[in-house]
Amino acid sequence: MAHWDTVVIVGVGLIGGSIGLDLRAKKLAKRIVGVGRRAASLKAALAAGCVTETTTRPDKAAAEADLIIVCTPVGRIVDDVKAAAAVCKPGTLITDVGSTKGSIVAQLSQTALPRDVIFIGSHPLAGSEKHGPTAAVRDLFRDRVVIVTPIETTPKKPLREIETLWKELGARVVRMDPAEHDRALAATSHVPHLVASALAGATPEPYLGLTGGGWLDTTRIAASDGSLWAQIFDDNREQVLAALGGVEASLAAFRQAIERRDAVQLQQLWEAGRKHRDALNKKKKK
Amino acid sequence: MAHWDTVVIVGVGLIGGSIGLDLRAKKLAKRIVGVGRRAASLKAALAAGCVTETTTRPDKAAAEADLIIVCTPVGRIVDDVKAAAAVCKPGTLITDVGSTKGSIVAQLSQTALPRDVIFIGSHPLAGSEKHGPTAAVRDLFRDRVVIVTPIETTPKKPLREIETLWKELGARVVRMDPAEHDRALAATSHVPHLVASALAGATPEPYLGLTGGGWLDTTRIAASDGSLWAQIFDDNREQVLAALGGVEASLAAFRQAIERRDAVQLQQLWEAGRKHRDALNKKKKK
Repeated sequence: MAHWDTVVIVGVGLIGGSIGLDLRAKKLAKRIVGVGRRAASLKAALAAGCVTETTTRPDKAAAEADLIIVCTPVGRIVDDVKAAAAVCKPGTLITDVGSTKGSIVAQLSQTALPRDVIFIGSHPLAGSEKHGPTAAVRDLFRDRVVIVTPIETTPKKPLREIETLWKELGARVVRMDPAEHDRALAATSHVPHLVASALAGATPEPYLGLTGGGWLDTTRIAASDGSLWAQIFDDNREQVLAALGGVEASLAAFRQAIERRDAVQLQQLWEAGRKHRDALNKKKKK
Repeated sequence: MAHWDTVVIVGVGLIGGSIGLDLRAKKLAKRIVGVGRRAASLKAALAAGCVTETTTRPDKAAAEADLIIVCTPVGRIVDDVKAAAAVCKPGTLITDVGSTKGSIVAQLSQTALPRDVIFIGSHPLAGSEKHGPTAAVRDLFRDRVVIVTPIETTPKKPLREIETLWKELGARVVRMDPAEHDRALAATSHVPHLVASALAGATPEPYLGLTGGGWLDTTRIAASDGSLWAQIFDDNREQVLAALGGVEASLAAFRQAIERRDAVQLQQLWEAGRKHRDALNKKKKK
């Protein structure tokens, strides 16, 4: 029994494509329509089995949708949701997968959308430095956290429907306030990307051949798409700057301990990081 | 045909143990004697097949050695080499695997060692956040860089012998000046460890459950042994502080671009990191 007749995925890249693969494999939707701007990318999505059909006409697809999942870059989500909302059936449910939530959710509140169309923000904590439909994989969301960010006016039934979507894909759903989401993700995702990039950029080119596994792991996400991350840093500017301040303070404390040859302080700083890291290692083993 | 009759490994942890495993498997030595302080650790090294015999008496082992490999923490290497040099046969060759080279090599020059004992510094760019003989693995050094740091007075034949050792273990040998080694490794290894630790420590504890693959990769090496890294940061203090300054400047540039909403600058900073990262990805694929 399919949950949905027609699911429309706007933006069939790594995330959108992986959602499509799972929806198909689990027979959760009869039709999965991939919407995109570039015909070549849509063709690749279809070939990879991410969707059952494709179109470059978002208006046409949205009009037939029971559920719309907007998987475009953070800077385009609000416009793409509004465009779909303008033409879809009354009461259609729309969600997204953006890495920021505060400003997106605020701009897409009930009063901003026509004819009872409902937007509920989602953010799956899954992905990689790769992109495009050819990077899509089955079970990308299994055992991952997906944050959904309802607000006071969000009706309960559509909220349960969005949560069901993510649970059916194997994810653990966590409800959060949009502002709290942005504060948390600045620290756990946005600033780590920034730090990885800064570290990679600061490594002198002649020494790149002398890097080991540590450098490679620490900078892996520096290979991500820069235009996507520029949008995220800008959209979540205040929280990114605040979390960056935390890392800068931590580096300054390391600097001071090394300058003063304060082995005790150095050890304490190191153990603070290791404690956080070990807490997660234990969690993953459970 | 074994290259050596008796190889003594002082400190049979991840690195020393892995050397032993390869020496045995490749039949490069008839006897591989593991020297350590703790009987339990030596027992584990023997059980793991890292060595053919063990002793807690470094003097006894050194006296029988043809080659001595000191794999103890950076802060102990100079003392351990001097102790071995005091009792070994005239002309015995000693190397180490320390992550710093400048001060170690300077303190163990020909004039500092008795009876033609020769010390040549090595640094294999291999390892992980794990430690102990149970973490030792075969082929740890295959296709990895091992830096050897001869100085002007280093005789050629022993230098070739040390380089043969690492090549037999599958490594690519790079000769470097000890000071240049320390400058390079501060940027490619020491500061990345420091940054990973600072990032892990700066992530607020309540948000640790909201981390994804990016955070996990970027902070993996923060789980390394803090006392080992405190010794490395202290031993290579000036170069670590200089390389840390490079990362701090890069973070400050990111901060400024975000504060000013300068998308062009943000993109340029990101691309600088990605370029370095991509250069290595290409290299690895070759």
